[in-house]
Amino acid sequence: MSLTVAVSGASGYAGGEVLRLLSTHPEVTIGSITAHSNAGQRLGSLQPHLHSLADRVLEDTTAEVLAGHDVVFLALPHGASAEIAAQLPADTLVIDAGADHRLESADAWQQFYGSEHAGHWPYGLPELPGRREHLRGARRIAVPGCYPTSSLLALSPGYSAGLLQPEDVVIVAASGTSGAGKSTKPHLLGSEVMGGMSPYGVGGGHRHTPEIEQGLSWAAGESVQVSFTPTLAPMARGILTTATAKLRPGVTEAQVRQAYSDAYADEEFVHLLPEGQWPATKSVLGSNHAVLQLAVDAHAGRVIVSAAIDNLTKGTAGGAVQSMNIALGLAENAGLAHQGVTP
Amino acid sequence: MSLTVAVSGASGYAGGEVLRLLSTHPEVTIGSITAHSNAGQRLGSLQPHLHSLADRVLEDTTAEVLAGHDVVFLALPHGASAEIAAQLPADTLVIDAGADHRLESADAWQQFYGSEHAGHWPYGLPELPGRREHLRGARRIAVPGCYPTSSLLALSPGYSAGLLQPEDVVIVAASGTSGAGKSTKPHLLGSEVMGGMSPYGVGGGHRHTPEIEQGLSWAAGESVQVSFTPTLAPMARGILTTATAKLRPGVTEAQVRQAYSDAYADEEFVHLLPEGQWPATKSVLGSNHAVLQLAVDAHAGRVIVSAAIDNLTKGTAGGAVQSMNIALGLAENAGLAHQGVTP
Amino acid sequence: MSLTVAVSGASGYAGGEVLRLLSTHPEVTIGSITAHSNAGQRLGSLQPHLHSLADRVLEDTTAEVLAGHDVVFLALPHGASAEIAAQLPADTLVIDAGADHRLESADAWQQFYGSEHAGHWPYGLPELPGRREHLRGARRIAVPGCYPTSSLLALSPGYSAGLLQPEDVVIVAASGTSGAGKSTKPHLLGSEVMGGMSPYGVGGGHRHTPEIEQGLSWAAGESVQVSFTPTLAPMARGILTTATAKLRPGVTEAQVRQAYSDAYADEEFVHLLPEGQWPATKSVLGSNHAVLQLAVDAHAGRVIVSAAIDNLTKGTAGGAVQSMNIALGLAENAGLAHQGVTP
Amino acid sequence: MSLTVAVSGASGYAGGEVLRLLSTHPEVTIGSITAHSNAGQRLGSLQPHLHSLADRVLEDTTAEVLAGHDVVFLALPHGASAEIAAQLPADTLVIDAGADHRLESADAWQQFYGSEHAGHWPYGLPELPGRREHLRGARRIAVPGCYPTSSLLALSPGYSAGLLQPEDVVIVAASGTSGAGKSTKPHLLGSEVMGGMSPYGVGGGHRHTPEIEQGLSWAAGESVQVSFTPTLAPMARGILTTATAKLRPGVTEAQVRQAYSDAYADEEFVHLLPEGQWPATKSVLGSNHAVLQLAVDAHAGRVIVSAAIDNLTKGTAGGAVQSMNIALGLAENAGLAHQGVTP
Repeated sequence: MSLTVAVSGASGYAGGEVLRLLSTHPEVTIGSITAHSNAGQRLGSLQPHLHSLADRVLEDTTAEVLAGHDVVFLALPHGASAEIAAQLPADTLVIDAGADHRLESADAWQQFYGSEHAGHWPYGLPELPGRREHLRGARRIAVPGCYPTSSLLALSPGYSAGLLQPEDVVIVAASGTSGAGKSTKPHLLGSEVMGGMSPYGVGGGHRHTPEIEQGLSWAAGESVQVSFTPTLAPMARGILTTATAKLRPGVTEAQVRQAYSDAYADEEFVHLLPEGQWPATKSVLGSNHAVLQLAVDAHAGRVIVSAAIDNLTKGTAGGAVQSMNIALGLAENAGLAHQGVTP
Repeated sequence: MSLTVAVSGASGYAGGEVLRLLSTHPEVTIGSITAHSNAGQRLGSLQPHLHSLADRVLEDTTAEVLAGHDVVFLALPHGASAEIAAQLPADTLVIDAGADHRLESADAWQQFYGSEHAGHWPYGLPELPGRREHLRGARRIAVPGCYPTSSLLALSPGYSAGLLQPEDVVIVAASGTSGAGKSTKPHLLGSEVMGGMSPYGVGGGHRHTPEIEQGLSWAAGESVQVSFTPTLAPMARGILTTATAKLRPGVTEAQVRQAYSDAYADEEFVHLLPEGQWPATKSVLGSNHAVLQLAVDAHAGRVIVSAAIDNLTKGTAGGAVQSMNIALGLAENAGLAHQGVTP
Repeated sequence: MSLTVAVSGASGYAGGEVLRLLSTHPEVTIGSITAHSNAGQRLGSLQPHLHSLADRVLEDTTAEVLAGHDVVFLALPHGASAEIAAQLPADTLVIDAGADHRLESADAWQQFYGSEHAGHWPYGLPELPGRREHLRGARRIAVPGCYPTSSLLALSPGYSAGLLQPEDVVIVAASGTSGAGKSTKPHLLGSEVMGGMSPYGVGGGHRHTPEIEQGLSWAAGESVQVSFTPTLAPMARGILTTATAKLRPGVTEAQVRQAYSDAYADEEFVHLLPEGQWPATKSVLGSNHAVLQLAVDAHAGRVIVSAAIDNLTKGTAGGAVQSMNIALGLAENAGLAHQGVTP
Repeated sequence: MSLTVAVSGASGYAGGEVLRLLSTHPEVTIGSITAHSNAGQRLGSLQPHLHSLADRVLEDTTAEVLAGHDVVFLALPHGASAEIAAQLPADTLVIDAGADHRLESADAWQQFYGSEHAGHWPYGLPELPGRREHLRGARRIAVPGCYPTSSLLALSPGYSAGLLQPEDVVIVAASGTSGAGKSTKPHLLGSEVMGGMSPYGVGGGHRHTPEIEQGLSWAAGESVQVSFTPTLAPMARGILTTATAKLRPGVTEAQVRQAYSDAYADEEFVHLLPEGQWPATKSVLGSNHAVLQLAVDAHAGRVIVSAAIDNLTKGTAGGAVQSMNIALGLAENAGLAHQGVTP
């Protein structure tokens, strides 16, 4: 069997990463590769790392071009996916790496994005309780944001096990610059980012907050409240998330550790590290793996969980391919066997 | 007037930074420059950036060598300062960049360092309420740690003004690698740190926690409790601190902003940025400046303060020189007029 | 068929990269993984990126442990390979990533390494004229150095085609820090390397010079003379080589371009980029690919060739696996289908 | 005495660096600060590191605004300086950090820039033989390019002393990204530049080649011919230049070393390092210093000189301020006493 797959948004970082992974996926034939303003160009001039696809030419991102593939990946700006997805056949597997179909709540969507809510699709984070089942056989999948992926992997086992208090979660995350895409803004210039750090979107307005709260609330079975601060780190890839939540009275570090160990025991891509070893984003670079460590700060009554992912792989394209594999009944790790690229 | 100054620990990063600043200080003559295992070597071979001092030869770090100077800077490993300081004349200004004399509480010292408490010296963070007065005329000064410096600048105005709750402060900070010194540990190799981030000392055991709590408690007039997580960022210098605390009921963002604006209105080195502009560690690189921004997350009931300093300058050597200036009645900014080095 | 493979030196960067590639090689079962001082440790604690092998325990590097595998990779310090290789069966494929068996000339070995010459093995750079045939069926292979790999790919087509003068080649190369290995030397600390560049081994004494001259002389059919200067760049991986040689009288840029185009037309891993596109080390990061561009400086009578490889992949472990594939009659790209990891 | 100084192009990297240096210059009062599209903005929002000037507002770059100052710095795009300089009074010291007035040869200008030649001003590299005298009392100064600065410091002593052959100089230089300015081109994004290197402008067409040849020819007293290749390194600041030239027959390393040692013996800012110590760009970061080392490759008959500068300081703004000091009879190091900022 070989599935034909189309990839839109192929000149951007997310689209390029989808292509990187699909290029070695054993069950996949890459069909149309599309872009908007870069249509007509050679892929090799825009994504010089995709050597085996260098001579492919980018087509226009239209429903006509994308239709007729078994799978369509959408790596488009927020707001663009819903429109094009509506024109694709119902039995085509459409995987949206954008935000349009992540939130259940139309109110939250409206508040943070300001446009009409396009509806909610099965959520492509199979390690979150209950989500893998939603993905089996699905024909529409919303890929989680990169910050929510790491935040939910960091805290959901504590909530599923009933060990954490729902109020006053504090999350601070450091992301590589590729999370901001290829847009040529002055603050993203190499001269500006190398050798320094800065925060952005501080104060609750970050669009990933409702998505993190949604996932943690699913795990907790009650509404969870989060303060989330993202920062920009001088690296191209990777997210290091420091997530802290208050323990319910009497909960011990051993209980928390057991809950995490149980939650991820059968997961191929999420690893609670041995005690004493801390997550490093470099250890997952270019891979679909996530690594976690936790500690209880008894003094503060909080658990602190540190989680590292590659924002473009597990945080975007890897999660997308993993979700595709589940939806189509393929081996969940097909095309995702890469180790991290270190050093 | 020219003061003679001796600098010990001159082969390390802190000692090198003290020398960098003193080399252009208008009131200072650099006397003995000392080291331990590197004694006898040419400074230029160990600190190749100190061009005007390149041919100076490192002497041994002994009380004999250091005595006879007006000012002595100690940039020694924890535990080494107390012993040598005890042998220096009482009228010599001794400025300890190490931890030995930072904590008032012998219990806290014992718990986090495990050795006998050497006592507490005036605390070299003049922007913290009440501290500048302690420094005037002092002959013994403890330089704050780099993480406490940024954390205290970030939160003390909120506590001084009575706007923040004393429990459940959460601080996550990202530091450049120079904070770990010149020790050749594998995880500090360039191949390991470039392109990635990792946490360390998670879970309340970090030695800077009691110092941060001490300073915030001074400001609050009551005991403040902190969860602190440091992370290592792929940059040589800089600390970006994200500090959050719960607002007292009814406190507004305008009140908080006013308190910070008032607190730093007359400070030359600490800047609350205009709204909409976020701190970047690069903007203070190599300088004694600190930049802050804040936002109230009404949803979470927390203020989030972002603070950026250079860990070696305002966080160590700059704070030390500033304290020296105050102690001796010099202009507080003497030798510290540098802007940040950007890009 | 599944071949059993042993990897020695597995706690270092070269050994780790061999394991990374072999872990997804379709024809290989990874047998013993060995180290010297780290024997007995869990691989995951030393190479945290090798997730699927994390629980493997490092064995001692001895001939007893290594024997009994179909293939043995040696990633050992210079001088250590020859001794252990001599104890391995003649029909075991032994692939030496170290320098011991690279040089034909015992005199050159003696001059640059100062020890007894261990002899010369087939040279694992199949793209160099005549070398691929030497590798077929070989049971002993010397993996080229990373600098020679990029330098020879950059200049050998010009020499094979008789277009370049043999005297006065000038090569300047910038390497990532992983080329210096995991040794904890002060100048390799992150604080020292981030944000700066420096040269090393200037003046003809670099050990890679005789190996570059050897390969170019093979291509030219006469003795070629090289001035080679390596520099250290603030990146973990990658080599960018700028190689220049004097054109023979009357040679045009079109002729040179044609020669390179012909030389690499059938090579899967070496790419002469379209005119106007320049090599970037990031485009080959983590992959076995090499990218080249050239220009004739008519003014200076020189061709300038720019070549980019990943020093650990095409420059070491990838070249080693590619050579293994050739020796054993496997598909040359087995286990090497990765694209570059960009951004 | 206090001189009033105007700085144009103040929103760019060169203009920002001029302001950084002038802000601590003891003889200078900063007057108008001007920009083009950013006129009307607060300097602190564009150059957040210039803390003491943060509240200054950018004026328009016009001759009216700039006139009436004792000194005017022009940090404008190529081609813009000549026009505005022509409108400034003859007794105003005008220092052009752009290229317009660097080349003596109208033909070379025409060939590389394609526009009309604006004429040649005294060349602001006082360490080049004969140039310091041209600068004394000058009222028009052309600041050298950053690549020429490092290249000329690297090779001119060998030419002045008659030790080097004039043909076949090969120079390869690695520059930080700030050399490309603040223009938001995709290849200058942090995601693209961090962790990798690439060349650009290969093949003799680089605009700095005629300027390097001009300076070396001045030193040699005959026409010198250069092959120059610039590369882009993953750092914000710094140039590492590897310059090689053929020795005249019989010349020894000792002779070359003596020539360099003599040439720079009385220079405050240029340092031939002790044997065995190699230049590092970090050791001059943010400072006006240059460091050099050399070796003779007897095998290749070449001297290889390695030189490190900060492209924005000695390579642009520092050289500009140093030239201003000379022109006005101030201490040559006024405002330039900074050491390098390391680590």
